[in-house]
Amino acid sequence: MPERKEPTYLFSDKQVGEKSEIARRFIETRSRLNSNVEKADNFLVKRFYNLDHNTYLEGAIPAKYKELMGLVVSAGLRCDDCIHYHIIQSYRLGATRPEQEEAINVALVVGGSIVIPHLRRAYALLEELYSA
Amino acid sequence: MPERKEPTYLFSDKQVGEKSEIARRFIETRSRLNSNVEKADNFLVKRFYNLDHNTYLEGAIPAKYKELMGLVVSAGLRCDDCIHYHIIQSYRLGATRPEQEEAINVALVVGGSIVIPHLRRAYALLEELYSA
Amino acid sequence: MPERKEPTYLFSDKQVGEKSEIARRFIETRSRLNSNVEKADNFLVKRFYNLDHNTYLEGAIPAKYKELMGLVVSAGLRCDDCIHYHIIQSYRLGATRPEQEEAINVALVVGGSIVIPHLRRAYALLEELYSA
Amino acid sequence: MPERKEPTYLFSDKQVGEKSEIARRFIETRSRLNSNVEKADNFLVKRFYNLDHNTYLEGAIPAKYKELMGLVVSAGLRCDDCIHYHIIQSYRLGATRPEQEEAINVALVVGGSIVIPHLRRAYALLEELYSA
Amino acid sequence: MPERKEPTYLFSDKQVGEKSEIARRFIETRSRLNSNVEKADNFLVKRFYNLDHNTYLEGAIPAKYKELMGLVVSAGLRCDDCIHYHIIQSYRLGATRPEQEEAINVALVVGGSIVIPHLRRAYALLEELYSA
Amino acid sequence: MPERKEPTYLFSDKQVGEKSEIARRFIETRSRLNSNVEKADNFLVKRFYNLDHNTYLEGAIPAKYKELMGLVVSAGLRCDDCIHYHIIQSYRLGATRPEQEEAINVALVVGGSIVIPHLRRAYALLEELYSA
Repeated sequence: MPERKEPTYLFSDKQVGEKSEIARRFIETRSRLNSNVEKADNFLVKRFYNLDHNTYLEGAIPAKYKELMGLVVSAGLRCDDCIHYHIIQSYRLGATRPEQEEAINVALVVGGSIVIPHLRRAYALLEELYSA
Repeated sequence: MPERKEPTYLFSDKQVGEKSEIARRFIETRSRLNSNVEKADNFLVKRFYNLDHNTYLEGAIPAKYKELMGLVVSAGLRCDDCIHYHIIQSYRLGATRPEQEEAINVALVVGGSIVIPHLRRAYALLEELYSA
Repeated sequence: MPERKEPTYLFSDKQVGEKSEIARRFIETRSRLNSNVEKADNFLVKRFYNLDHNTYLEGAIPAKYKELMGLVVSAGLRCDDCIHYHIIQSYRLGATRPEQEEAINVALVVGGSIVIPHLRRAYALLEELYSA
Repeated sequence: MPERKEPTYLFSDKQVGEKSEIARRFIETRSRLNSNVEKADNFLVKRFYNLDHNTYLEGAIPAKYKELMGLVVSAGLRCDDCIHYHIIQSYRLGATRPEQEEAINVALVVGGSIVIPHLRRAYALLEELYSA
Repeated sequence: MPERKEPTYLFSDKQVGEKSEIARRFIETRSRLNSNVEKADNFLVKRFYNLDHNTYLEGAIPAKYKELMGLVVSAGLRCDDCIHYHIIQSYRLGATRPEQEEAINVALVVGGSIVIPHLRRAYALLEELYSA
Repeated sequence: MPERKEPTYLFSDKQVGEKSEIARRFIETRSRLNSNVEKADNFLVKRFYNLDHNTYLEGAIPAKYKELMGLVVSAGLRCDDCIHYHIIQSYRLGATRPEQEEAINVALVVGGSIVIPHLRRAYALLEELYSA
């Protein structure tokens, strides 16, 4: 049962937000809407959030690659919020820009041109996160 | 431009087919239907196949993880043929069973219970491939 | 042939808009864009709208549960406009907040974490509609 | 927190299988493949199965309607196994054939003609389950 | 209101079935399952079938191109039955094999490699239909 | 190999932007985000863009109908950016408004009511493009 260790993040959400305005606004909106969900205190939603959290821990597959996998499937399923989230998480775990681009390429080829509008928005975020 | 080196496979398609009857039948059907597509010699299809091939080469991300990413997005998009293909490719590149299961878990949590029927069929293949 | 009686709404669109700013803006935008569609007077579109209307009438299944079903499938297919629409319709038919949350939970478990961004926005609307 | 009471089934899986050959084969295959998944004993899969189970218990919404909701979203997402499963569960909880058909109609109108091949297979199952 | 004239088919279903075994089996199964749906005589299903029929009539866009459009969206949404149906309808309206392949290419590029398993099966049908 | 001739556009992007404010803003945003993608100079992305371009050239099927096919599958897969893009391209190739509406109708019937919010936004663009 190797799926259970918290990963070590190289950057906090705050540091990510200082590097990228797109990231900052995404994190802020997500946090505001999530506080609303937490207040509702729905039993199954909380369990799902918990399950979700456990999925991306260090395990047989390093957390960085799991976040990149989350990116691939999010881009394949065309969910901008999910794409933003996993790009940020991958960045926080030390993924390089070429790694992020290769992950997005898997989604592009598997998911087709319908992924391109999401790829464009993803690159806007990558540009900010990986600028010097 | 790191995305361009052919990966080294630990097993041939033939060896995979000897290990698993499900894999053997999948490879055979796929090969038979593909020969039909090749005969048609459609310019764009050939270019797409070529692009597809290039996506999974060794690069910034090791080929094994790219195949596992292909597995995650295939399971998230619920394509049994694609799932079978990427499980076999990951196996040929040395992915362990826990790695395959963790990849499928990302798809399960991202894609939901609708993924479960595909997970069941994926586990039948894993069972054969990773049996002693 | 039980599918043919108009349901009785507890609240008008106007009342819903007074309770929730999110609902008010949604109803307004939808109405403005729809007037454009109506002007075009496309035969098949009109028939589809009519068919759509007939689907949610009182029948073997009470209209309230049909609207909640519309909510579940809309959330599973990840369509924010459709989610907003069916939350409002369910509210107008007397659905309680726990009923709305349980319906969304079915979509969350069936559709996976990719549903979460939509769930967050749905809860923002629920919060306004069901506030004291 | 109303989502927690096991529903009372009017029929066992065995009785369903005696009524419908399609159902019998579905239940058998599903059970065989699931035993394989259970053997793997994957922590996250088990938690997901558990969460899934909790979603359809008696709560603010009666279990019968939740199963019909599961049917609607399964048909909307076009998953034959899931459709079969929820038709059987709804049947076991006393759903009538008109209720099943109305639920499928919601999926048909929301999901479009792409749902029709699944509707056809669903009706074959309904025909067997609700025959005199 | 130009959408209302029945197209002229070059071949009957029977002739298609004599040319292709895959087509023959598809038409037979579809017809058998449909007779079951017709027997149920569901009001909304009948109206949906009628609407569906009206969508592909001769109009501003010739029926042949509409059937090819049906093929593109069916392949993009990955529905084998729908793909088979629209390939056969396009064939009956005189579409050439290059036209069918180009239509499938639009779906391949828009929908990505996930379309490939369906493309393979589509080519098996094309091979039979367009053989000398 | 008929798929290779550039189509002749009746209108430039600039002319389209002067006719429709919605189109102008779409073209501008797309262009700005694309310049970012081009700067990244990713090998596979460039090849995909190239393949995408080749898909819609004059061939066995006239370019106008291919763009309308792109519209149908984009609407069926519910991608607003893609819908806008193909409506504009079809317009530039001389598609009439009834042709655009019939193409959208195929997507509506195949994809269901979930397509309606996208249809509404598409009609807003059509209204501007085809106004006197």
